[in-house]
Amino acid sequence: MTDRLPAAPDRARAPLAADPAFGVHEGGKLTVASRVALDGPADLALAYTPGVGRVSQAIADDPSLVWRFTGRRNAVAVLSNGTAVLGLGDIGPAAALPVMEGKAVLFKQFAGIDAYPICVDARTVDELVAIGTALAPTFGGINLEDIAAPACFEVERRLQDAVDIPVFHDDQHGTAIVVVAAALNAARAVGKRLADMTVTVVGTGAAGAACARLLAEVGVGDIIGFDREGVLHRGLAGLSEAKRWFAEHGNRDGRTGGIHDAIKRSDLLLGLSGPGIVEPWMLTDMADDAIVFAMANPTPEVMPGDVPPNVAVVATGRSDFPNQINNVLAFPGVFRGLLDTGAPRCTTAMKLAAAEALAALVPDPTPARIVPGAFDPGVADAVADAVRRLATAPSVDAAA
Amino acid sequence: MTDRLPAAPDRARAPLAADPAFGVHEGGKLTVASRVALDGPADLALAYTPGVGRVSQAIADDPSLVWRFTGRRNAVAVLSNGTAVLGLGDIGPAAALPVMEGKAVLFKQFAGIDAYPICVDARTVDELVAIGTALAPTFGGINLEDIAAPACFEVERRLQDAVDIPVFHDDQHGTAIVVVAAALNAARAVGKRLADMTVTVVGTGAAGAACARLLAEVGVGDIIGFDREGVLHRGLAGLSEAKRWFAEHGNRDGRTGGIHDAIKRSDLLLGLSGPGIVEPWMLTDMADDAIVFAMANPTPEVMPGDVPPNVAVVATGRSDFPNQINNVLAFPGVFRGLLDTGAPRCTTAMKLAAAEALAALVPDPTPARIVPGAFDPGVADAVADAVRRLATAPSVDAAA
Repeated sequence: MTDRLPAAPDRARAPLAADPAFGVHEGGKLTVASRVALDGPADLALAYTPGVGRVSQAIADDPSLVWRFTGRRNAVAVLSNGTAVLGLGDIGPAAALPVMEGKAVLFKQFAGIDAYPICVDARTVDELVAIGTALAPTFGGINLEDIAAPACFEVERRLQDAVDIPVFHDDQHGTAIVVVAAALNAARAVGKRLADMTVTVVGTGAAGAACARLLAEVGVGDIIGFDREGVLHRGLAGLSEAKRWFAEHGNRDGRTGGIHDAIKRSDLLLGLSGPGIVEPWMLTDMADDAIVFAMANPTPEVMPGDVPPNVAVVATGRSDFPNQINNVLAFPGVFRGLLDTGAPRCTTAMKLAAAEALAALVPDPTPARIVPGAFDPGVADAVADAVRRLATAPSVDAAA
Repeated sequence: MTDRLPAAPDRARAPLAADPAFGVHEGGKLTVASRVALDGPADLALAYTPGVGRVSQAIADDPSLVWRFTGRRNAVAVLSNGTAVLGLGDIGPAAALPVMEGKAVLFKQFAGIDAYPICVDARTVDELVAIGTALAPTFGGINLEDIAAPACFEVERRLQDAVDIPVFHDDQHGTAIVVVAAALNAARAVGKRLADMTVTVVGTGAAGAACARLLAEVGVGDIIGFDREGVLHRGLAGLSEAKRWFAEHGNRDGRTGGIHDAIKRSDLLLGLSGPGIVEPWMLTDMADDAIVFAMANPTPEVMPGDVPPNVAVVATGRSDFPNQINNVLAFPGVFRGLLDTGAPRCTTAMKLAAAEALAALVPDPTPARIVPGAFDPGVADAVADAVRRLATAPSVDAAA
């Protein structure tokens, strides 16, 4: 859920046999199955040669037929180089494979999408763009995953420019959609207007940058970015493009300083960093009825039980606390909508519509329930509907 | 089954709706399915975060665990750029997709392998090698498919050198394995020794070159190559590497001339070209008890009903005549054996063992039955056994 995490202090692992997660992963989590009968030579002559030759020729003559007579219309590449996997960091493509398989399981479970986990040995932007471009004819969309910042920004931008199918870096946009949905409902739950709220983003990597931009789109009053450099402000030289956004578009009061300064008087703390950065006592200096999204995974920046009384709403990335902010609420429905309409890209308008559709699934939000659960019925359908409506609308934002 | 075919004369296609092949292809022939239950948050916590993080970390610490806790051990990439698809030629990656999906269906049906069709927009050897190398961490093997000669030779060689999983260009080696199996049994059926036989190969592209080399390995007496240049001989300048092999290793009598000269006195005609090159009357000048493998697809070089009386055995690539020489007899079992043993490459010894295992499935070959049928039970098992035995043998040929 976050792309920039320090090493977790408790990295020690239980023996494999004692951990049921390893049993679930034995032999992998996916299988490729045939949708056609193959009981004898007659079937073979249709599904393979010579019948398949007539289908291939038809597609060669009319390329649009690929969307009808192959699996492309329902196929998504989950493409990663394993440089920013969960909170584990740069563990490489092989070690990233269980995560991408898991993603594919979720794509299938929640949206019926055939997702291929594709972990590549490729470190540079050029390589990743070349591979994604080459793979495009096989897929209806590309889900970029767990690619480190800042490479991920340029990979997404250049790859999207190169292909005519949607490219969606889930660590950025999936996170942003769910965070905005949660922010909309958390504001309702505490009776605040977004325009009056200050949001502090701790961790301004891929997820933080995308969340900040989408929060700005829904009209949040001010956004303070915090990272290794401290509070991000216009006086800092040499900031990355992502961090410069915070300095130029947020921090209206020109704050400077450390994490405590970043949090003071803030209405919403969005943690996309790791444990040990935010101390619970600092939260007492947030605004009244403060909101904390402590999304570091698996250990939140602040544990829900440790927040002071002025914090009214707490969300995490974990399933064992209320208000789980999980990308799985967004990406299956987003891609379902994109694939169904043949949309060539996922626009900002679609992301906002997806966030609003998610928020609307909790019509009367309370501090204990600001987002739907991953297994609530209709989540992916609602998100897909929102995306589909915009994809088929006569005008969508071209500048997204 | 062949990689170099002129345009078929009857390219006209029936309307889509009237052709059952299109019905079979509607929506594609594959689906990606989950192997794990995902019925609620507890399942999600094992198959996805946080449980998956422990599995990824374990693989990062011990890379060999990728073979146990992901699908890599059973996953094959069916990689094509669509430059030499069936007899259709260079129709591109999108139009190649139905063929690669069909291949994946066969991998699953006959060997339980999870094959991912990956059609790439990549024309050069460098691009294909780079893509294959990058993809390797996700797969246990790479099946190259329908890549035009001569690029296919260099792609296979360089890619195999770059990765530690087997790379197998099925158009070459799958074809060669089945052709050698058929040749072994056809020779038995007519009572000839391979060492006494002359084989004429019409069409010296990827399949022809690989067949010739494997036929030489089993001790065929002489091999005559024929292509656009006429009979391939040492006096021809500027031959490609594949064609030079025929000039240097075959054609012991130093034949020159056209197709009729290539066929004269030959014991086995291996057609990997197209219709209209070999005329039925020419076959009367082959040896007594001649063998014809007319493998152009869908229209054989010579129709089985048109051969003269001196031809004792006819095989084609088609299911509607006896003796169907079909790669599906080889590649599922070959990859099953490679994956099961973690073999880093498919050696010549393995290919020969696979061919002999295939031939042995027809213990008393007759002119009407020289190879098993694709749906005969035990075919893939027998081939896989042969490959497994060599993969686990203390010494395998390193020069393959």
